[in-house]
Amino acid sequence: MALMTGHEYRESLKKRRPMRVFMNGELLEDPTEHPVIKASINSVALTYELAEDPQYREAMTTVSALTGKVINRFCHLHQSPEDLYKKIGMQRLLGQKCGTCFQRCVGMDAFNATFLTSYEIDQKYGTDYHERFKKYLEEAEEKDWVVDGAMTDAKGNRGLRPSQQPDPDVYVHITERRNDGVVIRGAKMHQTGAINSHEILVMPTISMQEDDKEFAVACAVPADDPNITYIYGRQSCDTRLMEDPDGENLDAGSRFGGQEAIIVFEDVFVPSERIFMDGEYDFTGLLVDSFAGYHRQSYACKTGVGDVAIGAAALAAEYNGCERASHIKDKIIEMTHLNETMWACSVACSYKGEKTPAGNYLVDKLLANICKQNVTRFPYEIARLLQDIAGGAIVTMPGAKDFNNTETAEMLEKYLSGSDKASAKDRFKLMRLIENLTLGRAAVGYLTESMHGAGSPQAQRIMISRLGRLDQKKEMAKNIANIKGK
Amino acid sequence: MALMTGHEYRESLKKRRPMRVFMNGELLEDPTEHPVIKASINSVALTYELAEDPQYREAMTTVSALTGKVINRFCHLHQSPEDLYKKIGMQRLLGQKCGTCFQRCVGMDAFNATFLTSYEIDQKYGTDYHERFKKYLEEAEEKDWVVDGAMTDAKGNRGLRPSQQPDPDVYVHITERRNDGVVIRGAKMHQTGAINSHEILVMPTISMQEDDKEFAVACAVPADDPNITYIYGRQSCDTRLMEDPDGENLDAGSRFGGQEAIIVFEDVFVPSERIFMDGEYDFTGLLVDSFAGYHRQSYACKTGVGDVAIGAAALAAEYNGCERASHIKDKIIEMTHLNETMWACSVACSYKGEKTPAGNYLVDKLLANICKQNVTRFPYEIARLLQDIAGGAIVTMPGAKDFNNTETAEMLEKYLSGSDKASAKDRFKLMRLIENLTLGRAAVGYLTESMHGAGSPQAQRIMISRLGRLDQKKEMAKNIANIKGK
Amino acid sequence: MALMTGHEYRESLKKRRPMRVFMNGELLEDPTEHPVIKASINSVALTYELAEDPQYREAMTTVSALTGKVINRFCHLHQSPEDLYKKIGMQRLLGQKCGTCFQRCVGMDAFNATFLTSYEIDQKYGTDYHERFKKYLEEAEEKDWVVDGAMTDAKGNRGLRPSQQPDPDVYVHITERRNDGVVIRGAKMHQTGAINSHEILVMPTISMQEDDKEFAVACAVPADDPNITYIYGRQSCDTRLMEDPDGENLDAGSRFGGQEAIIVFEDVFVPSERIFMDGEYDFTGLLVDSFAGYHRQSYACKTGVGDVAIGAAALAAEYNGCERASHIKDKIIEMTHLNETMWACSVACSYKGEKTPAGNYLVDKLLANICKQNVTRFPYEIARLLQDIAGGAIVTMPGAKDFNNTETAEMLEKYLSGSDKASAKDRFKLMRLIENLTLGRAAVGYLTESMHGAGSPQAQRIMISRLGRLDQKKEMAKNIANIKGK
Amino acid sequence: MALMTGHEYRESLKKRRPMRVFMNGELLEDPTEHPVIKASINSVALTYELAEDPQYREAMTTVSALTGKVINRFCHLHQSPEDLYKKIGMQRLLGQKCGTCFQRCVGMDAFNATFLTSYEIDQKYGTDYHERFKKYLEEAEEKDWVVDGAMTDAKGNRGLRPSQQPDPDVYVHITERRNDGVVIRGAKMHQTGAINSHEILVMPTISMQEDDKEFAVACAVPADDPNITYIYGRQSCDTRLMEDPDGENLDAGSRFGGQEAIIVFEDVFVPSERIFMDGEYDFTGLLVDSFAGYHRQSYACKTGVGDVAIGAAALAAEYNGCERASHIKDKIIEMTHLNETMWACSVACSYKGEKTPAGNYLVDKLLANICKQNVTRFPYEIARLLQDIAGGAIVTMPGAKDFNNTETAEMLEKYLSGSDKASAKDRFKLMRLIENLTLGRAAVGYLTESMHGAGSPQAQRIMISRLGRLDQKKEMAKNIANIKGK
Repeated sequence: MALMTGHEYRESLKKRRPMRVFMNGELLEDPTEHPVIKASINSVALTYELAEDPQYREAMTTVSALTGKVINRFCHLHQSPEDLYKKIGMQRLLGQKCGTCFQRCVGMDAFNATFLTSYEIDQKYGTDYHERFKKYLEEAEEKDWVVDGAMTDAKGNRGLRPSQQPDPDVYVHITERRNDGVVIRGAKMHQTGAINSHEILVMPTISMQEDDKEFAVACAVPADDPNITYIYGRQSCDTRLMEDPDGENLDAGSRFGGQEAIIVFEDVFVPSERIFMDGEYDFTGLLVDSFAGYHRQSYACKTGVGDVAIGAAALAAEYNGCERASHIKDKIIEMTHLNETMWACSVACSYKGEKTPAGNYLVDKLLANICKQNVTRFPYEIARLLQDIAGGAIVTMPGAKDFNNTETAEMLEKYLSGSDKASAKDRFKLMRLIENLTLGRAAVGYLTESMHGAGSPQAQRIMISRLGRLDQKKEMAKNIANIKGK
Repeated sequence: MALMTGHEYRESLKKRRPMRVFMNGELLEDPTEHPVIKASINSVALTYELAEDPQYREAMTTVSALTGKVINRFCHLHQSPEDLYKKIGMQRLLGQKCGTCFQRCVGMDAFNATFLTSYEIDQKYGTDYHERFKKYLEEAEEKDWVVDGAMTDAKGNRGLRPSQQPDPDVYVHITERRNDGVVIRGAKMHQTGAINSHEILVMPTISMQEDDKEFAVACAVPADDPNITYIYGRQSCDTRLMEDPDGENLDAGSRFGGQEAIIVFEDVFVPSERIFMDGEYDFTGLLVDSFAGYHRQSYACKTGVGDVAIGAAALAAEYNGCERASHIKDKIIEMTHLNETMWACSVACSYKGEKTPAGNYLVDKLLANICKQNVTRFPYEIARLLQDIAGGAIVTMPGAKDFNNTETAEMLEKYLSGSDKASAKDRFKLMRLIENLTLGRAAVGYLTESMHGAGSPQAQRIMISRLGRLDQKKEMAKNIANIKGK
Repeated sequence: MALMTGHEYRESLKKRRPMRVFMNGELLEDPTEHPVIKASINSVALTYELAEDPQYREAMTTVSALTGKVINRFCHLHQSPEDLYKKIGMQRLLGQKCGTCFQRCVGMDAFNATFLTSYEIDQKYGTDYHERFKKYLEEAEEKDWVVDGAMTDAKGNRGLRPSQQPDPDVYVHITERRNDGVVIRGAKMHQTGAINSHEILVMPTISMQEDDKEFAVACAVPADDPNITYIYGRQSCDTRLMEDPDGENLDAGSRFGGQEAIIVFEDVFVPSERIFMDGEYDFTGLLVDSFAGYHRQSYACKTGVGDVAIGAAALAAEYNGCERASHIKDKIIEMTHLNETMWACSVACSYKGEKTPAGNYLVDKLLANICKQNVTRFPYEIARLLQDIAGGAIVTMPGAKDFNNTETAEMLEKYLSGSDKASAKDRFKLMRLIENLTLGRAAVGYLTESMHGAGSPQAQRIMISRLGRLDQKKEMAKNIANIKGK
Repeated sequence: MALMTGHEYRESLKKRRPMRVFMNGELLEDPTEHPVIKASINSVALTYELAEDPQYREAMTTVSALTGKVINRFCHLHQSPEDLYKKIGMQRLLGQKCGTCFQRCVGMDAFNATFLTSYEIDQKYGTDYHERFKKYLEEAEEKDWVVDGAMTDAKGNRGLRPSQQPDPDVYVHITERRNDGVVIRGAKMHQTGAINSHEILVMPTISMQEDDKEFAVACAVPADDPNITYIYGRQSCDTRLMEDPDGENLDAGSRFGGQEAIIVFEDVFVPSERIFMDGEYDFTGLLVDSFAGYHRQSYACKTGVGDVAIGAAALAAEYNGCERASHIKDKIIEMTHLNETMWACSVACSYKGEKTPAGNYLVDKLLANICKQNVTRFPYEIARLLQDIAGGAIVTMPGAKDFNNTETAEMLEKYLSGSDKASAKDRFKLMRLIENLTLGRAAVGYLTESMHGAGSPQAQRIMISRLGRLDQKKEMAKNIANIKGK
């Protein structure tokens, strides 16, 4: 059976071999039990739990193009524009449910990009990467894996190509070739959900040249390989999760979280059947570009978080007793307008998606870049408007425990109350949610990740420039201006 | 045969009965021969000429849902999301070709809105409006008519409803009922392309109440009805078209134009078979809203004009010799980004369109409003960036005739030259195009019409507020913040 | 001698009577020793330390208008437009030095507003508030006090005036009158630097009416009055200050901090000589408006923080090795442009300041509101651009202690290095600074406080509307349009 | 007596020798009688008429620093920061009165820049340019001249310096040296008010190098020199001024206008006493930069036009009957906010002005560039908001003459009326004013000239980058981040 429950997913993480996970100077005994990591697991687990829920099953599951079995949509090869649209529907839904990053998109996007790239390599070079990858993906579907799509290298000196770096490890590369596989070394930075994954799908991070052949490698390794070390990334307000782990933990603002880590590969062996590119540097561009296309579409998830932000703004207005003020209503309309503009862009790049030679569907790349470019701007403005509507209390609220201290509890009840639509404590909870969305752990995902995930804004601008067909537009202008010359 | 050629269209306008058209204080003898009007006819004629052109035939024509004949897409009842998408494709194409308003969209949008509304009225009241309208539309398709969808009334005191106005004429209304039809009176303002039309399809302008029954009227009349008077709207730089009507007319910036007029109905008789709503005030809202939805989608045409603006910017940079400056390149990327964001919104509202009870397809209304709201902003910023890139010469260039005067021609050749990519005169032509797009006749369409056409920005904001499902979003926020209360 | 050193200031805080300060559920034994509070004291102490420093003495000190002695500028009654300008110069300087809120402005602004208001009350009612206040201020100058200007009440139901509230305590009010003074009760919210103060200067929070007389009270009480309770406000990432209090504490991003607290007055006695308004409700508007004017000017401090943000962006570009990219340079120019635009507004409202009847100078109120309104927008955009330039590492960096663990330190050295301009650890430090400025404790001051301090954006818009002289502008338009009518 | 009346100014223009002025292919007989030019003279004449008016005399006149006589402020050498402030006060006033460009600022700014530059040249080279210039300026003050500050050359190939151009005439240069003077040749483009001037003050357009010596020339020539040709620049809607020159001319929107022309110098002799720089290429940068500084400050005039735009918006709201709508009020506040932000920047750069070695005062250059940079953005947004509030009628109104035709007049009265606050004709006049401000002749000044006058936006960004003291800011960031390294 190809679908895990949320509970089975949590259990499956515990069944992995011991993993070397460092957090803030310490090697963790059981990462899955750490309150900070637990919050991030809560988000990933939603991708399983909602698939169990009859209300969301259709959104979350589909029929495998490889096996015909019912699978989680996160493992799916998109078979149509409608499939691409259903992908973003699922992502918006999850954003609405957890208000942060649920970490499973990167793997889905890596699946689709590797699928189409491996096909094209095989066409040119007669290799069998595509078959290998299909087998791998069948297993991923069957076992309902979370797979970390690992792309971003450390990069060292940005002015030098991989093969020119003084220390080659700043790009993941092959250090040894054996009969039955290769050994890789290096690190992947900013790895979303890495420690909550079953597998890691390694991909090259940039378009490469012939000299860079040893760096042009795509392959899969288990997340619990003993030669892998994880160093956990800190997030704003992360330790609030540790303040009252078994209680309500209200200062945390939410029980959900994201996760970023550095993955260090210290001579990890990869068996041949898990290698999907080995030296075909001329296809690194295709893999990177198509992954970027898929992943820029994926930022549709932020419209789900935006829905939460808009809802929080509307509630804050009510709890503060000013929901009828025209400027408040106008700001909520503006938030909605910005959020739906992002959504429209992701819808458009989905429906204009086209079939690849390998058979799956790829988004319209220009529109996917337009989508992501807006995502580098609008969530910041939505968050600003949310802070405007919420009021300064989001940064001056006392600690949750002051509600438990009898010496202060009554004062808080008296002085933190707003309108009669909410108790002081409910208002407090809402302010903590808004703090979390705009300054805390969720802000990491909603703001900074919106800026830099799937490529920084300038990366999209370069693609927009490339795909903008300026020559055709110049002809249009010349025709109307009646200019005959060159 | 259902398709006219461009030539036949021009001839068909001449075959109309004499029309009372006033322009700047004068009654025009033959409106179709006036240079200002000719320019606007050039734009409409493109909708026929491109339909003749094998390269564009597929974009411009389709198969009638009523008769199965090949018809111009402007007469079409949209049969699918793909049809809605093809509609905006056609509009972008025409914007690219003429860089201004081609005036035929209003009729198309009125067709689809009246079709679905008349069906619903009949369902409730057992009337036969829908059949009447289908017959009318068959004729429109067959004769390949340009139809002016006439909605906006004069409105008088904005605080009063139609039936409360001191002078009822400020809303078009029925003044007399005869056995075979009714007589209407009033005026429609801001009528795009009215004088270039064969027919006028009158619609109510707002949602009405029971007292307003005599104002709740939808019907069709021939544009050349003798009881109709047209008063031509002036546009920025309109008379430049009259300066050199038989020459190159370079100061005009383009041979294409738009057209706005006031239509005054002084007791115009409408036969029963051309009445599609008569008193069913409870359906005025549906007609207005669905027309607004279609017409807000139609502003996709501005992305075609935007393509011309982007092309003009790129050319200007070349002609000025600064196309490699990074800030220039970045501004062109920004223009492209904004233009494609608008496009993405119109694509999205098309593909999310749904089948109406009457059988044609209606756009997604929320996304159509999002689309139009962006159109009230982005063209202004694109125009600003275009002026930035073009340089001050767009407003300091001498007259075209100074190129013909031997005493000044040489000076202009010498001092107006930019890079070696263009002659002084080509650079002059380009500057005139840009002046036209940002300050002249085309700016009327690209800017002010983008602001107010299909409803002013606030109209969209009200719809966004209504369609934004705030209650659902508040629940999302409460779930994450763990707020249990109401 | 009227100037304390930084050391003396710190000592003076310890000499206060025991204060009831609750933080996150606990009553603190010695607030001045708590790492979170210490950071906030570091910022206030700068206002003393720089006054000692010959390089900054001129900026930080001036000659008292009351006594002719050299005093700290924070205690000064502004005597000229130049004085108003020097005030913002000092504030920008301090922003540059600590990158956060130094908490002493509110008192300075309260001094100047109370000075001019008490004078006007006396003129009308023959009271002696002004003399009382001058004596109080002489003492404040002499003792070089930090005074918390306490204005914002809890407000309860925003739709009711103070005297209409079910619980009168939601506005500070007089509960008892004695021969030698009055007793007050209530709370002040969002009190910046309250616990680092020597005194509290209580002011009414809104313009009041006759029924509200008992709420129209301005007075001073010592910060260590035993009937006062403080409840400490939490800030994003506050507890990072507690992780390594005696070490480098690098995860904190900065050794400086701000401070917000709720002050609860439970029947605090105020002797007559410390009462500066008692029932003169008709002057509450003047006090609130003039305080708001001064305090909106004070947001010039954010340009100092902006300087740090711009410097951090420039460094990040260098450390990442991309300081020559044209888009990076352009973004830094934009940050500078926005920052200097805010600065220009605060300069302008200073130089257009005018002498009050009481003799001190008040800023131009329209321009002060323009200034603050920009402050509610531009820091958010500067922070967004800073995150853009810095890169995603600001939210994925491991903890500082991972640098101390030998198992991970080497990996970090290897993989976190950027260009040769900085070590991995320096780059780490910079990223923590940027995290702090955009998401952490400093973001509370740089963003949310910029939004809501000295009045939320809508408060400024109302003032802009009132002060905008629309009637004059309508006349200008009519004159040019040649409209003679009303 | 040093002050001309408006009437005397108009007469003085007629007294000039015959001038070679070409407009749209024709040599004009008497330029001062052409309706288009007359409108531009109306604007310049205001600078004399308001100086006669007791209400404005203080704003418009001052005491000469050279002679102690009362002079028009446009001829003044600024003697203090307060003088710099009074300069912008005068400019805002004039913008309010004519709503367009009054053309006399360039000369004033050229005076001050040439004054300080000639002083510095003399200090280095022992020349006597400064004395010459003082004598010239005394005459200008005494005769109350309008002087055209002529800077912008044709520039030819932007990639080559003046001495490298194939045709040297694309930069004004010396072609012959005589005992008593020099002969110059070339052209100046975009010359504001050239034909309404008494004199032309020629300045180099860029910073030059040694090879460019023959191009490094500053000098004065009479505007009516027979070897000068003017080619008049067309503006949007210019010919509307010719439609009803002796009537109300309502379609023109305003009786005021701006003026741009190309000035061609065909071997014009300049006597030695009118030469203020001849070959001192190392001072071209100072002249250009200081002129740019003064002239960027001068864009304060646009805040006066902005006042008219805001007034027009408020009137339009009233005439349309929607002045109480909250979104309308909010947009007017936003327009005011943007307008006052520009104003604050010009106030700030004035008060932070400093004394030059020559003795006059120069604005703060960083803040003057900040000011102008905002002017390249905000008027466009103000104009957009004005169009939003005004409604689509600004581009669909019939011609003014339709009000005179009895067949249409009554219809217009009936259907163009809005609220009872204005007649149809007053509403029409207002719409024409708004059309003029946003698309017509006034838009040339309010928009495009705001973009490109005194240097295009990128020119300001380069200066902001140069003056931004980034090194200091990097140190601030390092101090707070505790980074010790380089």
